[in-house]
Amino acid sequence: MKMENKDILESSYWTARATERRFTEREVPQELIAELVKKAAHAPTTGGMQLYSVIVTRKPEIKKELAAAHFNQPAATGNGIFLTFVADFNRFSQWCEQRGAKPGFENFESFTAAMLDAVIFAQQFNTLAELAGLGCVYLGTTTYTASRIGEILELPRLTVPVVTLAIGWPAVKSEGAERLPADALIHDEVYHRYGADDIDRIYSEKESLPANRAFVEENGKPSLAHVFTDVRYPEANAVKFSEDFFDYISLQGFAWPEKNAKK
Amino acid sequence: MKMENKDILESSYWTARATERRFTEREVPQELIAELVKKAAHAPTTGGMQLYSVIVTRKPEIKKELAAAHFNQPAATGNGIFLTFVADFNRFSQWCEQRGAKPGFENFESFTAAMLDAVIFAQQFNTLAELAGLGCVYLGTTTYTASRIGEILELPRLTVPVVTLAIGWPAVKSEGAERLPADALIHDEVYHRYGADDIDRIYSEKESLPANRAFVEENGKPSLAHVFTDVRYPEANAVKFSEDFFDYISLQGFAWPEKNAKK
Repeated sequence: MKMENKDILESSYWTARATERRFTEREVPQELIAELVKKAAHAPTTGGMQLYSVIVTRKPEIKKELAAAHFNQPAATGNGIFLTFVADFNRFSQWCEQRGAKPGFENFESFTAAMLDAVIFAQQFNTLAELAGLGCVYLGTTTYTASRIGEILELPRLTVPVVTLAIGWPAVKSEGAERLPADALIHDEVYHRYGADDIDRIYSEKESLPANRAFVEENGKPSLAHVFTDVRYPEANAVKFSEDFFDYISLQGFAWPEKNAKK
Repeated sequence: MKMENKDILESSYWTARATERRFTEREVPQELIAELVKKAAHAPTTGGMQLYSVIVTRKPEIKKELAAAHFNQPAATGNGIFLTFVADFNRFSQWCEQRGAKPGFENFESFTAAMLDAVIFAQQFNTLAELAGLGCVYLGTTTYTASRIGEILELPRLTVPVVTLAIGWPAVKSEGAERLPADALIHDEVYHRYGADDIDRIYSEKESLPANRAFVEENGKPSLAHVFTDVRYPEANAVKFSEDFFDYISLQGFAWPEKNAKK
């Protein structure tokens, strides 16, 4: 069916989409992945450099290791296959060297550019995969254990895994999660500080949802915010993961100014 | 027009899309931006936290300052308005504090999560804006001068600008840029090292394009790779921008393990 871009914009897909975490045993054909990658690669990319790779992992023994690196969360231990999106300056640097040019990408700015590239590409892939009927879930644990994932996936210098999608054919049809009101996300001209009233208004719908109320009760916490700070994202974990990720970025050759200064 | 997701997947939009850098004087209505933000906010987000804000800048005097921070590149000095996408743990932390919970997000892992969130949201916005007929260009210079941009946009603690889109109604219709073959981006099971033959094959189309050949000649360089290493992305610039961005992330409260250790 021939359609205009404006028709696509009006599709219910954009607001009805939902993360899927449970998949059937039906195979995801490699040709479909190749087709989706080909389309997603037309997403914007820094200087046309395409500073990313995607590693598609299906073998049960490697999946088992990756699932463990993702803390065996249910989305990682099921039928989904793993697509690990890697910030990749390795391929581009190799091209430069092979042409006799001297690549200068062993620095944090280059890591940042490659990470942006990889995430833009991953999100374009996510949209296209969902449109193809696949279910997808981002595993935010990728940066927590990037070093272990890099070991499993045999990552070379100047590559760092930044996000992972577990994908497959959805076993159920999930409902989209709630979102903050758009005006809470938009600032006119410059950043506007949130007052106490703004915060109450912005988060009230989220706090009043039955699922979130139940979540607070199950965890025996005084508020939904406490579930996030005490249960889901405790500071001690984040501090440890920060150190590990920081060290791995450096180990992979995207050297840090502080560390360079010490040499 | 009612359409199925598979029809959307088959649209030529995905492979025909192109970055636009020149815009007419026609206004981009705030209601359209609000509608696009509302849709884009349904993109995946870490733990449902929506760790991002977008700042829409139209005022000529502020645009002028932002354009300078983006090195007055042509895409930044024209009719486009600026959408600065900010990794934002400020709003979420304020909510936690207001509920008596103790936020633990002053670390690099939290910065990384917020940056991923902001970029996923930005790319979803980019797609929706293009479908609405707007032209968009990412300004990769955002992380080069994040500190200056933060000053102009009055950014509070726990916010860092990560990408900027200049958007407007396209003055011309650009053609999409070339992309590497999909199989060059996909790795089976684990990362496969590129051999010299792979590199030659992967980059041959890019190198042979008349526009790229002309680019090499204009710059008086021996190869396209040299244009990237010597002209577009010289190492000395990247090292300076690395230090600046690194310091700004720390200044904004996403403290670094190394720096904490020194206290």
